[in-house]
Amino acid sequence: MSYPFLKGHGTENDFILLPDHDGTTHGDLPRERVAALCDRRAGIGGDGVLRVIRTAAYDASWAGAPDPALTEQGAEWFMDYRNGDGSLSEMCGNGVRVFARHLVDAGLVDAAVAAGDGIPIATRAGLKVVRVDGESITADMGEPRLLGTSVVAVDDHTWPARHVDMGNPHAVAFVDDLAEAGPLLEPPVHDEEVYPEGVNVEFVVRRGARHVAMRVHERGSGETRSCGTGACAVMVATAEADGVDPEAHDDVEYVVDVPGGRLTLTWTAAGRVLLTGPGVVVAEGATDL
Amino acid sequence: MSYPFLKGHGTENDFILLPDHDGTTHGDLPRERVAALCDRRAGIGGDGVLRVIRTAAYDASWAGAPDPALTEQGAEWFMDYRNGDGSLSEMCGNGVRVFARHLVDAGLVDAAVAAGDGIPIATRAGLKVVRVDGESITADMGEPRLLGTSVVAVDDHTWPARHVDMGNPHAVAFVDDLAEAGPLLEPPVHDEEVYPEGVNVEFVVRRGARHVAMRVHERGSGETRSCGTGACAVMVATAEADGVDPEAHDDVEYVVDVPGGRLTLTWTAAGRVLLTGPGVVVAEGATDL
Repeated sequence: MSYPFLKGHGTENDFILLPDHDGTTHGDLPRERVAALCDRRAGIGGDGVLRVIRTAAYDASWAGAPDPALTEQGAEWFMDYRNGDGSLSEMCGNGVRVFARHLVDAGLVDAAVAAGDGIPIATRAGLKVVRVDGESITADMGEPRLLGTSVVAVDDHTWPARHVDMGNPHAVAFVDDLAEAGPLLEPPVHDEEVYPEGVNVEFVVRRGARHVAMRVHERGSGETRSCGTGACAVMVATAEADGVDPEAHDDVEYVVDVPGGRLTLTWTAAGRVLLTGPGVVVAEGATDL
Repeated sequence: MSYPFLKGHGTENDFILLPDHDGTTHGDLPRERVAALCDRRAGIGGDGVLRVIRTAAYDASWAGAPDPALTEQGAEWFMDYRNGDGSLSEMCGNGVRVFARHLVDAGLVDAAVAAGDGIPIATRAGLKVVRVDGESITADMGEPRLLGTSVVAVDDHTWPARHVDMGNPHAVAFVDDLAEAGPLLEPPVHDEEVYPEGVNVEFVVRRGARHVAMRVHERGSGETRSCGTGACAVMVATAEADGVDPEAHDDVEYVVDVPGGRLTLTWTAAGRVLLTGPGVVVAEGATDL
């Protein structure tokens, strides 16, 4: 069997897209196929797989079926996102931009709607609206929750870290120099009571007014080139440190540099976080992996 | 511009193939394009690029032109091999199997000749003959040179190492356990006078009669999943240690396990080393990188 694929990335968080509009090509997509595709040497290589499937075509008996109500909410397309090891995943701020880019490029959605109100996309974390306006792609990442403060440590360095929840847990530590955290081959030490399921740890330095740079260690993945929810958490923690009142503020905008590129984050007056950045497709073809 | 590519690997040493039969697509293939293709996150990803071009179509003014005499020696096709950073490279025992597999699959050579006498392929290291017989692909890697013995060291471990030259330099060290060499994040310490251009270092353990397993640290690349010339060097050093007379012996055959798979090595009575292993193409498509 040979089937189509595309490869793309958002700030160097890279994905294999699998067009399977009616679910007839991959069915209950086997974990082994995802892992084989994502293998960077024996396969094509990617951080994860994004199957492109109609929300209504995803059989309820398959693993990780989306909420059927999302179809009624206008989400024709479901981002069936899998981690590189084949496990199910919920949502990815970089992946959803690449997914939206493909929907527009392939003519699967109305380009005027995409550039206007945005495309409603079904994910395992619910409905996400993504606006594709030329090169710039903006995903509404929802409302952050600012929780407590704990500490993270690498070797004999310890930093205070702000706990921000973006649907997944983050610990944001301000550092003097991004090199301080060392090669980050191991997960930073964190408070297991605060983060019983593990945590993504961001190290942040100031680059200018409303401009920071970060590195991130993602639980289960190690250091990565970019993390969409991590950039959201970093923006919120930085804005708070800059005196922005989490409860009442105008729209505030920050630039967050990640190792794989540049993201722009907006914390709206309505309390939502908008993630803007590139999403590109670099290759397409067929494989029988 | 959109142009065709394929991706494949030999024991997880992976390559992007660029069909450019008449040289009109890529011309004097720019280093930047190779690096962009091989980028594992922003590009497609690979250890290197193998351009598939007719030997006679390679313009003499382009970097790294093959010896024109190779065409007269029957090598219609030239393996224009580039490292992942875009620099020119000469020859790769894993790459040449993938290259030959593609020539057969794409009907660019006579399958009966490929399975019989083998395909003569032009490389920057001269003519290579590769036999494609079903799954099994055998490349004639030429004659080894057994030189002296020195030592290699990692942290406070030191091992004697046999110097074998396969066109490139190798230091083969027998160890009790492959884990002894540690994570191999740095090049092993070696004698700079013996290896002024650096060296590929192989660590070898016995697995059974005429069966060994190895790890390799390649100069300029770090630890890799496989190294064709390294497997040749390991076989020769092991055979010598087993009492095979380098000057006069029957064909001897060894199995060499590398992290990315299994290779079979033959040291022929005529003194040549044959490298047998898989070569597979896993995807094909188009890109505009």
